Amino acid sequence: MNASKKVFLSDAEMPRQWYNLAADVPMQPHLGPDSQPITPEMLAPVFPMNIIDQEMSTERWIDIPDEIMGMLARWRPTPLVRATALEAAIDTPAKIYYKNESVSPAGSHKPNTAVAQAWYNKQFGIKRITTETGAGQWGSALSFACSLLGLECKVFMVRVSFDQKPFRKMMMQTWGGTCVPSPSPETNAGRQILQEFPDTPGSLGIAISEAIEQAVTDPKGETRYALGSVLNHVMLHQSIIGLETKEQLKKFGERQPDVVIGCAGGGSNFAGLAFPFIHDVINGDKIKVVAAEPTSCPTLTKAPFTYDHGDVAKMTPLMPMHSLGHTFIPAPIHSGGLRYHGMAPLVSAAVQAGFIDAVALHQKECFESGILFARTEGIIPAPETNHAIAATIREAKLAKEEGKEKVIVFNLSGHGMMDLLGYEKYLSGNLEDYELPMEVIERYQNVIKNHPQPTQ
Amino acid sequence: MNASKKVFLSDAEMPRQWYNLAADVPMQPHLGPDSQPITPEMLAPVFPMNIIDQEMSTERWIDIPDEIMGMLARWRPTPLVRATALEAAIDTPAKIYYKNESVSPAGSHKPNTAVAQAWYNKQFGIKRITTETGAGQWGSALSFACSLLGLECKVFMVRVSFDQKPFRKMMMQTWGGTCVPSPSPETNAGRQILQEFPDTPGSLGIAISEAIEQAVTDPKGETRYALGSVLNHVMLHQSIIGLETKEQLKKFGERQPDVVIGCAGGGSNFAGLAFPFIHDVINGDKIKVVAAEPTSCPTLTKAPFTYDHGDVAKMTPLMPMHSLGHTFIPAPIHSGGLRYHGMAPLVSAAVQAGFIDAVALHQKECFESGILFARTEGIIPAPETNHAIAATIREAKLAKEEGKEKVIVFNLSGHGMMDLLGYEKYLSGNLEDYELPMEVIERYQNVIKNHPQPTQ
Repeated sequence: MNASKKVFLSDAEMPRQWYNLAADVPMQPHLGPDSQPITPEMLAPVFPMNIIDQEMSTERWIDIPDEIMGMLARWRPTPLVRATALEAAIDTPAKIYYKNESVSPAGSHKPNTAVAQAWYNKQFGIKRITTETGAGQWGSALSFACSLLGLECKVFMVRVSFDQKPFRKMMMQTWGGTCVPSPSPETNAGRQILQEFPDTPGSLGIAISEAIEQAVTDPKGETRYALGSVLNHVMLHQSIIGLETKEQLKKFGERQPDVVIGCAGGGSNFAGLAFPFIHDVINGDKIKVVAAEPTSCPTLTKAPFTYDHGDVAKMTPLMPMHSLGHTFIPAPIHSGGLRYHGMAPLVSAAVQAGFIDAVALHQKECFESGILFARTEGIIPAPETNHAIAATIREAKLAKEEGKEKVIVFNLSGHGMMDLLGYEKYLSGNLEDYELPMEVIERYQNVIKNHPQPTQ
Repeated sequence: MNASKKVFLSDAEMPRQWYNLAADVPMQPHLGPDSQPITPEMLAPVFPMNIIDQEMSTERWIDIPDEIMGMLARWRPTPLVRATALEAAIDTPAKIYYKNESVSPAGSHKPNTAVAQAWYNKQFGIKRITTETGAGQWGSALSFACSLLGLECKVFMVRVSFDQKPFRKMMMQTWGGTCVPSPSPETNAGRQILQEFPDTPGSLGIAISEAIEQAVTDPKGETRYALGSVLNHVMLHQSIIGLETKEQLKKFGERQPDVVIGCAGGGSNFAGLAFPFIHDVINGDKIKVVAAEPTSCPTLTKAPFTYDHGDVAKMTPLMPMHSLGHTFIPAPIHSGGLRYHGMAPLVSAAVQAGFIDAVALHQKECFESGILFARTEGIIPAPETNHAIAATIREAKLAKEEGKEKVIVFNLSGHGMMDLLGYEKYLSGNLEDYELPMEVIERYQNVIKNHPQPTQ
């Protein structure tokens, strides 16, 4: 043990630009209802134009505005920490580092894009932002960001998470946000689902439909929608995670990691850490990049790369991505943030291009890994993050088998202070694993079989 | 807004020694049952001897062992942040800084002494530590520290907090600790109270009795007790907060603050920030040092300086301190960590010596202040911490009245992620204020009227 387990960065060493993987990995266009590429104008009722420009940009480096930097500086740079106690516990020759995104006020990486999106909306004259949330991390982060900028915030929270995590609602309220369970009776999309499936646990796909509907139907036109993952501009804002990590690894004396790991639901914390490293892979470095997802929602490991909608009500464009089908409702695992049928198009494109390995993990292995991490490194991780930790432990054990001193970096995307019920369930032996049978996956694929197909 | 709102410290700038106020402020001895000063041997069944030595030390600077530094370095230095958005919201000429202790894995300042105490216990060959906890911050911190060092941990949690904050127990369990509500049927002290007052909300005084009893009755002698506040060695370990803050203020270009503020229950987070500044006051600097306490438990503002026990069952020595009486049971306010009848003898001595101003605050003003802080600075504070914030806002408004650009520093001792029920109660208008009537205070003083009296 020594006092240099953790490194920060000086102001001068902080990234001043975001990295845009869309400059380096070609993407196929999003399609409108007519199967033609969408135009910026078609997205204008949903997002402010400054964000749409960013969404469609293929510039490699994009300046971070000073005011956004100022807000991020409240908790950034986040620490990069060498997990020596975890290394000792699993007796691995690998060096394990974690990027601790849990130190943000909302407790996860989500505020990185929340403050950026709230700032761009405010610049554009928007007064109110609607959104969806799974585990509650994103809804909390956006409520936090809106409170800093004096914007109204309305959050549709997937019902199963709303019920499992009542404190999330209180958190959003404390920041001045409003949070309702989804599906809700407030929207056409919600009412329709409730009528058909009154006991539905909800899904991110449904909640997205509700939030978009409320944004585009504001008669004053002062409301827009914000998405916490999936889209290019979100991946862009999160790239600060990986860019900081690269500088911090240098300070630890590491040239490059051998393995980079993140959990992947919509893809944003994974992309935030991984994309700047994929940039290096494109430039010739050899790095294994691993996306860890739940077996109950195996978007990268079992679902096809196809065109599909991001939401149940088909309000989003058709996006080229891995998708289990936009009507898919995942089992109610505790990792609410990973219960999404699709995957960020940019992550999907990078998988197609061969830059990413995906692995699916059961939640019991993940909680077991999270508890080992808590009892060695001291931080209780979010259930989502436990997928990254489980994958890290697998890689560290592999390094031992191979006798190699590999350098492994993973993203500690959030803490689990609001997710302790999941831990209690695991510790008392009441947690179940969910394997998604292929025939279920195939059934949901029916809804997308007539969609246009992207080039594979 | 700029990117330099927050400063850290390099390894070289980190404190390597704790500061001991007992070297500079004379204290009267603790007394045994015979009213004679206690000896180290008398404390030996309760604490390991290396901690007893520290408790009784009057050395001014005490080296921080490297291994403890290594564990602290997982989250230290904690950031010192300029609260520009809060300043703007209350339109004050004052500059407000907060020391963010909430970034520790347990979410408060408590791990600073928890890891130190666990380490000293392990050095001494102890296998199991018992303790009490109010709001749960200390019990979580000690469970965390014990998990890092491979020690068993048993926590008696004040029943009202145990019921209000069920997630705290899960947190301790996740770190491998055991947590029971106090009074419990596991100890003589607990059984006695339960028989007399079956519906008691409990108190820190009762929980301390239970924890000490379980430590001293271990037939193998492998158990010791740990206290999260009150005692000199705890104040010592917490001094790292103020020592870091002094270095960080220099980096902000401030020579000294005009006002230093902390909330005070047992006194440890307050002392941690304030004592290094009181050292400067002793050396001629002019700094107003404010301890903020709840009106429902007004130890410094309304209780006498006297000799009293730290616990209900009178298992602790008689300590010279401000005390509401060791049988006092405070109203069930949400700031569980401030519900203690006494005050650290070292804090009490500094109050007696004229170094500290005390202020008592109602919980509604405190929650209102905490919500303003959350909506401007982004962090949801612990209810205890809200007392420091309310006092800070009062001082900042005073600075405005006086037209002075004062520098105010307060200790953000913990976050409120586990305390959201209190926020919901406040936001829904269901929170009550408690003023403690003088006649109640006088009634409780009866239990101490025959104690020896310290020199005033």
